Amino acid sequence: MAVVEIYDTTLRDGSQGEGISFSAEDKVKIALKLDKMGFHYVEGGWPGSNPKDMAFFQRIKNHRLSHARIAAFGSTRKPGIPVQEDGNIQCILAAGVSVAAIFGKSWDLHVTRALGTTLEENLAMIEESVGYLKSRGLMVIYDAEHFFDGFKANAEYALATLRAAVRGGADRLVLCDTNGGSLPEEITAIVGRVKEEIPVVLGIHCHNDGELAVANTLAAVRAGVTHVQGTINGYGERCGNANLCSVIPNLTLKYGHETIPRSSLARLTDLSRYVSELANLHPNPHQPFVGASAFAHKGGVHVSAILKDTRTYEHIDPALVGNQRRVLVSELSGLSNLFYKLKELNFNLDASREETRRFLEEIKELEHQGYMFEGAEGSFELLLRRAYDNYREPFKLESLRVIIELKENSPVYSEAIIKLTVGGQVVHTAAEGNGPVNALDNALRKALEVFYPDIRRMQLTDYKVRVLDEKDGTAAVVRVLIETGDGERSWGTVGVSTNIIEASWQALVDSIAYGLLKNNGR
Amino acid sequence: MAVVEIYDTTLRDGSQGEGISFSAEDKVKIALKLDKMGFHYVEGGWPGSNPKDMAFFQRIKNHRLSHARIAAFGSTRKPGIPVQEDGNIQCILAAGVSVAAIFGKSWDLHVTRALGTTLEENLAMIEESVGYLKSRGLMVIYDAEHFFDGFKANAEYALATLRAAVRGGADRLVLCDTNGGSLPEEITAIVGRVKEEIPVVLGIHCHNDGELAVANTLAAVRAGVTHVQGTINGYGERCGNANLCSVIPNLTLKYGHETIPRSSLARLTDLSRYVSELANLHPNPHQPFVGASAFAHKGGVHVSAILKDTRTYEHIDPALVGNQRRVLVSELSGLSNLFYKLKELNFNLDASREETRRFLEEIKELEHQGYMFEGAEGSFELLLRRAYDNYREPFKLESLRVIIELKENSPVYSEAIIKLTVGGQVVHTAAEGNGPVNALDNALRKALEVFYPDIRRMQLTDYKVRVLDEKDGTAAVVRVLIETGDGERSWGTVGVSTNIIEASWQALVDSIAYGLLKNNGR
Repeated sequence: MAVVEIYDTTLRDGSQGEGISFSAEDKVKIALKLDKMGFHYVEGGWPGSNPKDMAFFQRIKNHRLSHARIAAFGSTRKPGIPVQEDGNIQCILAAGVSVAAIFGKSWDLHVTRALGTTLEENLAMIEESVGYLKSRGLMVIYDAEHFFDGFKANAEYALATLRAAVRGGADRLVLCDTNGGSLPEEITAIVGRVKEEIPVVLGIHCHNDGELAVANTLAAVRAGVTHVQGTINGYGERCGNANLCSVIPNLTLKYGHETIPRSSLARLTDLSRYVSELANLHPNPHQPFVGASAFAHKGGVHVSAILKDTRTYEHIDPALVGNQRRVLVSELSGLSNLFYKLKELNFNLDASREETRRFLEEIKELEHQGYMFEGAEGSFELLLRRAYDNYREPFKLESLRVIIELKENSPVYSEAIIKLTVGGQVVHTAAEGNGPVNALDNALRKALEVFYPDIRRMQLTDYKVRVLDEKDGTAAVVRVLIETGDGERSWGTVGVSTNIIEASWQALVDSIAYGLLKNNGR
Repeated sequence: MAVVEIYDTTLRDGSQGEGISFSAEDKVKIALKLDKMGFHYVEGGWPGSNPKDMAFFQRIKNHRLSHARIAAFGSTRKPGIPVQEDGNIQCILAAGVSVAAIFGKSWDLHVTRALGTTLEENLAMIEESVGYLKSRGLMVIYDAEHFFDGFKANAEYALATLRAAVRGGADRLVLCDTNGGSLPEEITAIVGRVKEEIPVVLGIHCHNDGELAVANTLAAVRAGVTHVQGTINGYGERCGNANLCSVIPNLTLKYGHETIPRSSLARLTDLSRYVSELANLHPNPHQPFVGASAFAHKGGVHVSAILKDTRTYEHIDPALVGNQRRVLVSELSGLSNLFYKLKELNFNLDASREETRRFLEEIKELEHQGYMFEGAEGSFELLLRRAYDNYREPFKLESLRVIIELKENSPVYSEAIIKLTVGGQVVHTAAEGNGPVNALDNALRKALEVFYPDIRRMQLTDYKVRVLDEKDGTAAVVRVLIETGDGERSWGTVGVSTNIIEASWQALVDSIAYGLLKNNGR
């Protein structure tokens, strides 16, 4: 039973995964979520490597965090130059964070072959880089890249690199299985050796190339490591990093260690889906602990046993990680989530009332069609107010038409024509746009601005499309998620249709309706 | 270094995974493939549970297998009846196989709560069921369900169930972590205890609920087990079974055990994709060893190191498991990624030539606009061939128009009108669709099918949209990624525009052009 620090690198190592690309704004959202859940460190990016990461560090400064410390990533200085002249190290300082994570070489092969320098110079690079950042007042986490492979090739040299970091004043030494090919018993033995030799807090950073990243991380903790690095959903280069959505519940529930608070653990499933939504990746239904199928039971033997005693086919209570038992014959999922959300909005519904039952069925039916309200609080609240609150729509659609034309050697042309009823008046107007959704957006704003001047402050900030049943190709149902902001807050809305324009329209209408609702409420 | 028997249960436990359903013919195909690759056992199904499984056992008899033995699955007899009157046991005999795999209860909780019988009767059920099948000449593999949980709750009783199976004459005793929640060190300790007490060959059967199925399987082998059960790609109920695509290469390449022949190991990636194709599931690109991203390098630092020595960022040679190194062309990467990619496509470009410089600048400019070639190898290769290969486009767009109409109380209507030049002829046609992209897709296929009948086999399998500069709202640049398959291979293409229809059109055009290019190349 120890306190194990959780260090999330979804925003840096995770974003090196194929097909993953977060915007600076996505990164800020994820960092805030991780902070709220009590993660100890959030590695925001590599400020020296691209302008997007630097933008993240600028933006995150505008937020007050309550738990997490933001870390900036980088490497030890280049061979043969003074540390204060190294651009990459300067970028870490420019990021303006209190924690630096820098990686250096542990494996002699890498020093001589990849870096093309001497073993001695590498030790100096480590000691001076750590020392310089320490002298500038930062906490320094030293990532010993390829530590296990390096140790197997030349244990003495690998240990010497750690000692160099200790001399520089490193606060944490993180042993990395960079190529992800180590076996648990190797991790156990090598961490044990390091622990005997080195007096600094040790960390672990595993990759999943042998499908052993979680096991290797747990083995390291058993051997005395108290700082764990990984990513949400195991995103990361090649086969990914150690999956924190499995590492955290294993450490907390199976080993009894203290990681993130229990109340946050109960929102782990939400977190996993939130991050996959922002990454625009399908959640893996079979993902341990947090997957939609992780506690799904098929009919027959399993179900009847589960009804007698859930321990018969469940290794933990799914509620501990915010997941749910699903019995595949009945679609009872989602109710407790739903009630949780209703309470959040101060709707204390009586579950026994007829209208509540009807509302629940509507939600179930919409989710069955492909709506997802997790990333669309705006649409969800509108649905609720439409059902209960005598909510009046700010306008009503009569008809819309969108025309897109593309000709050789001329720019593409998009036009939207809409006819609405607003406050008893019919408005019939048209607008062009950069693309059909923009044309629609422009036409809608043009029609409504006279009636609702607040609309001018609302801006669409993200637009995501997800194909739901891929087997149907271009005829598949698509879900559109729109994020809108007014400079103060932001909200998500959703639309679903086989027609991307119709789905976009639904989300667009909700986006404006919700914005107006909140403005009136102030 | 031992011989470890590989027992595949993809067709039985794997098909209990949510969303997986094999036809009897699919099952035969997979069994033949596994046989050819030297798997020792193939569990074909549970003949007592459904007619499809019985059909498999009938059909597989028409084939001569060269390595694998086919096993039929079932349970011990029901409480309180003579074994020869148990319908489930009779079905195993009716399957006409030489190997029976029967599961029985090890956990006292299950015996009394789920089964509702006495601990003594359960022992009799095990011994008599095993004994009866042995007396009918079958090899009997006894699956001790919930063995680890049972052992933790009541070690003496769990061992007594194994002894009952031994008295019945069981040839293998397979210890099952049915709920998938055990930890590697528990597996090590409990297998060690069993090994001391029981003189029969031991097996292991793990589930992945703690993301530890592969580690637990390896731990069991280290503790003396020589029979390993699992599924291809880790398919299976809830979070799946131990993934044989990771277990086999770990046992063979890391531990030096004998499993399937080395020549078969080099076809493991093919096997994984073949099974996912028949299961109609997307292959997981990040799957260890066999995933498309498992040896994909994105970071510029990684790529330049890989070019010097592949060991720097690869834990094994990808060719050993039939996989390939891939270098992703992306914003994070430098020129070294691009040169690697060109070499892969047999374009040996001279970096000093003017056209190469121009090509590189074009790529850089396109990436700056928002193109992403790491998920769009089809578009990348077309770009290259357009620049160097005197590539001729299969058709040329004259004009296109898309109209979408939405009226109160009537379904949305989408129509695409296109005018193309194909082989000197002008084709002017139109089509409706479920949404504008589907309408475009339909119109394009309609126009081209006469000229290129191969198009009929191409199917769009995924469609992703990403807004690139979110601050511009609906006027932002969007990137469309399309994945297309023809049943044998699949390829990605990309389009970028402020207009989602135009971006989709670009990706659609490349998708068909690339498919035709590859078909002509055969």
